[in-house]
Amino acid sequence: MSWTYEAPLEHMRFVLEHVLDAPTHWKACEAFADLDLDTADAVLEEAARFASEVLQPLNSTGDLEGCVREADGRVRTPTGFPAAYQAFVAGGWPALPCDPAWGGQGLPLLLDAALREMLDACNHGWNMYPDLLHGAYETIKAHGSDDLKARYLPRLVSGEWLAAMALTEPQAGSDLGQLRTRAEPQADGSLRISGNKIFISGGEHDLTDNIVHLVLCRLPDAPKGTKGLSLALVPKVLPDGSRNALFCDGIEKKMGIKASATCAMRYDGATGWLIGEPHRGLAAMFLMMNSARLHVGLQGLGHQEMATQNARRYAEERVQMGRAIGEHPAVRQLLDRLDVTTQAQRVLAYRAALALDLSEQHSDRAVREREKRFAALLTPIVKAFCTHQGFHGPAAALGVWGGNGYVHEYGIEQTVRDARIAMIYEGTNEIQAIDLAQRKLLADAGATAFELLDALRAELPEQDPLRDFIDESRTHLPSWLNRVAQDGAHLLESADDLLHGLAHTLLAWAVGRMAAMANALPDEAAARQRALATAFIRHAVPQGRLHWQRALAATAPR
Amino acid sequence: MSWTYEAPLEHMRFVLEHVLDAPTHWKACEAFADLDLDTADAVLEEAARFASEVLQPLNSTGDLEGCVREADGRVRTPTGFPAAYQAFVAGGWPALPCDPAWGGQGLPLLLDAALREMLDACNHGWNMYPDLLHGAYETIKAHGSDDLKARYLPRLVSGEWLAAMALTEPQAGSDLGQLRTRAEPQADGSLRISGNKIFISGGEHDLTDNIVHLVLCRLPDAPKGTKGLSLALVPKVLPDGSRNALFCDGIEKKMGIKASATCAMRYDGATGWLIGEPHRGLAAMFLMMNSARLHVGLQGLGHQEMATQNARRYAEERVQMGRAIGEHPAVRQLLDRLDVTTQAQRVLAYRAALALDLSEQHSDRAVREREKRFAALLTPIVKAFCTHQGFHGPAAALGVWGGNGYVHEYGIEQTVRDARIAMIYEGTNEIQAIDLAQRKLLADAGATAFELLDALRAELPEQDPLRDFIDESRTHLPSWLNRVAQDGAHLLESADDLLHGLAHTLLAWAVGRMAAMANALPDEAAARQRALATAFIRHAVPQGRLHWQRALAATAPR
Repeated sequence: MSWTYEAPLEHMRFVLEHVLDAPTHWKACEAFADLDLDTADAVLEEAARFASEVLQPLNSTGDLEGCVREADGRVRTPTGFPAAYQAFVAGGWPALPCDPAWGGQGLPLLLDAALREMLDACNHGWNMYPDLLHGAYETIKAHGSDDLKARYLPRLVSGEWLAAMALTEPQAGSDLGQLRTRAEPQADGSLRISGNKIFISGGEHDLTDNIVHLVLCRLPDAPKGTKGLSLALVPKVLPDGSRNALFCDGIEKKMGIKASATCAMRYDGATGWLIGEPHRGLAAMFLMMNSARLHVGLQGLGHQEMATQNARRYAEERVQMGRAIGEHPAVRQLLDRLDVTTQAQRVLAYRAALALDLSEQHSDRAVREREKRFAALLTPIVKAFCTHQGFHGPAAALGVWGGNGYVHEYGIEQTVRDARIAMIYEGTNEIQAIDLAQRKLLADAGATAFELLDALRAELPEQDPLRDFIDESRTHLPSWLNRVAQDGAHLLESADDLLHGLAHTLLAWAVGRMAAMANALPDEAAARQRALATAFIRHAVPQGRLHWQRALAATAPR
Repeated sequence: MSWTYEAPLEHMRFVLEHVLDAPTHWKACEAFADLDLDTADAVLEEAARFASEVLQPLNSTGDLEGCVREADGRVRTPTGFPAAYQAFVAGGWPALPCDPAWGGQGLPLLLDAALREMLDACNHGWNMYPDLLHGAYETIKAHGSDDLKARYLPRLVSGEWLAAMALTEPQAGSDLGQLRTRAEPQADGSLRISGNKIFISGGEHDLTDNIVHLVLCRLPDAPKGTKGLSLALVPKVLPDGSRNALFCDGIEKKMGIKASATCAMRYDGATGWLIGEPHRGLAAMFLMMNSARLHVGLQGLGHQEMATQNARRYAEERVQMGRAIGEHPAVRQLLDRLDVTTQAQRVLAYRAALALDLSEQHSDRAVREREKRFAALLTPIVKAFCTHQGFHGPAAALGVWGGNGYVHEYGIEQTVRDARIAMIYEGTNEIQAIDLAQRKLLADAGATAFELLDALRAELPEQDPLRDFIDESRTHLPSWLNRVAQDGAHLLESADDLLHGLAHTLLAWAVGRMAAMANALPDEAAARQRALATAFIRHAVPQGRLHWQRALAATAPR
């Protein structure tokens, strides 16, 4: 009954092959034309082995040991972490979704999503280090000078160097307009960076020789607010091999992901180079936000999967009152709800990854543009819902262990602690809800949402109650838009419920689609898939209705 | 913006004086006839000072230090814990609700409830030690021999000695029928106790010289299952001053309440004495279950209050996007929901404490019997709902701090970790739900529930939507009973939703009653009370309806 990971490869394959029909989509993308399911399978099996055999055994020890900051500012990660990272690099994993022009393998983000889900499930703390690579890669690729690209991209793609994102300052959490870090242009074209940043994940560590910091800062002539932010590349080790003037002044004592060094960083006249245009730093960073937010959503999915499969194994083996506790109705219902939500989250998150792939690679421009819209709409929902569930699912699952669940050695309590941060960083879930309501729904008067819901409902059989629920939700959206038109303040007050209402609607599609494609599975698995749909209709659909009802309800007097 | 405690004395007084009309009830109890509100106020003010000045400063350090088990089995509590306990004893706090015949102060459990709420809010880990006293006191008082009473009650009432409850064994969590610890009768009338127990809170520590263990065990001729359990009093130090053969073999590494020593205990032929009849140990322990479960519910209330008031202070002081974050609609709504739920939980938990008082002390036998029924019905609801909310409330409140909420020094992350255990121990919340459904509702065909709901609705003004919600709920109860009559399995499958449906119904009474009595408050406070009722109607009543709907819904196919 120990805490272990069995990668959900069968369900992943079912989602790729039948629920999302990925091979058909890949054929329409020149970059993926040679990819088939067997290759994808082989990649995922290898990833599963790495996650379960190399990372998972380091999860509990990493939590207990935590990171240590030495007196000289160096940070030591827990035992085994550097070796695991070397194995990760040797396996070529960082390069998986990167452009072959920079040494990448050019595989879809969809497969990268499955890889990340497994890494997060097994060791969220460890995965914080490489998780930041891709965002830095995308930002430099899109906005860096040729010189910066040549100097940094190959070594980020290979994973030889890691990256850190330096945004937050003590006075500026979600409010980036208050950032103060200064950048002074030098005669040689470089910048001199001075300021203090907090909450810098992987700002300092011992996994790689160099760490490439992307630092939000202000040039001397910068306008106030977010429109005066520039982005600088500030490496720990300079091209001439000397140590740059950036220092870790402390690491945070946190609720969870204790193996991830959350650094307070001091840039003490450090040398850096501008990425992109002056004062356009936020725009450069926004580029990577869709994938970064998807990655955080995958952390939630990983925790939910890990909690669900371990709770099920425990419940099958632990006997109380003469039978396995999994046979007690309250436990059985909880496990079913966890199962169906995990699976539906996976479908939803992978659909968002597919949208990102198609928006870049599909041969048909109309599809590229449609999928770009879908990705923009899905991203805040995946980020917020999957991390919400990624905390609340494990928090509920903990009860399956009874008192043992509260004890570290059983594993689940760490999952609950680790999972909570994902609701906060990369834009809090409240910010995701506002992004959805304001920029994704109000901005186009719901057009993209209608387009998506119409496309999804068409994938379900007629007379499916889940299709009915989608239709029902579709009628709520115009009501919400009207409500906001009458009372602008309603948007902010209803955004959370709106996001959860829409998330439940999308989950309903995912569940309905899995049931509809269940015939492709062996009999027993197919029956199970249909039973889960029934459980979802009984438990989650009324919950979704409640969110819609609240999203539409009259606001309390102000 | 540091983590502090301002005891909610004004709201406590409002609840005692106006919402529950405690003075009128006290006048009808001989034991409390001399008690007035001024005395009660003085007691609560003194308790608030102790909690906020002595205990609260030890909360974070207690978590970081935790307990240490020395090689010889002794357990050292965190710095300051023994001194705080000595101050607690010197203040006479353990004796507050105890019988004057044994050195107690004879004050109502209602005041004891307010005291415990404050202790739990400030330092749950520390309060684990004295929290167990009252249960041991009640059990020995009701079932102990005269000799045991004389030897142990005065020193438990004064707090000179502490107590521990030794129930759980590795193979027997919620299933006490599987307990194996043996008790062999000796020629001198004592018992020789041998066995291993786990999860024994305060089984060993350095706060008192002696620790009185109440151990569930089996006599040689015991029937199998729970009907063969006896209860033994096993002191750490024997009457002759020698050390008894009970040893702490280890302490658990837990998610929270790290300052509370959760011990694995070994009774190695330890000397003990029977409490009550042979094989009737569980009945003897059940006596204290109502108050013990109420105490755990108060832990949830304490956490909820602490999270709510600190979140509000932080939200008022922290400025982002040009204004205090408390003015942002999502935060404002969250704070209102936390506020109204905290207040309603307090009313409900205190009502349960009042029921316990009246069931023992009221001069009218009919009232005593009615209140005994009410206490039995309210107890599982208070335990399960207040601890559910006591975890989920702080877990949501953590978001108000953004990334800071994840960092230990801001306080809230510890509250979330500490609070989770209360959903599990003293009977998991799932067990509370089954207790409610089976023994409190089905057993008398809902008679007590109808009696309670009728009494409560009569306290609300006509045409109050909250009264309508109680009436609505009242119609659901017969439907649920019918459903269970048709399909026995439905009881276990719907118990959780039933408990939460009924809890929301009782909260609706509490909120309506507060609004109805708001005229007794200053104008601003009265207006606030009414606004909170509106927030509750908008957010919580639909949630309550959802639980009732699920409790009645057709069960998924089995």
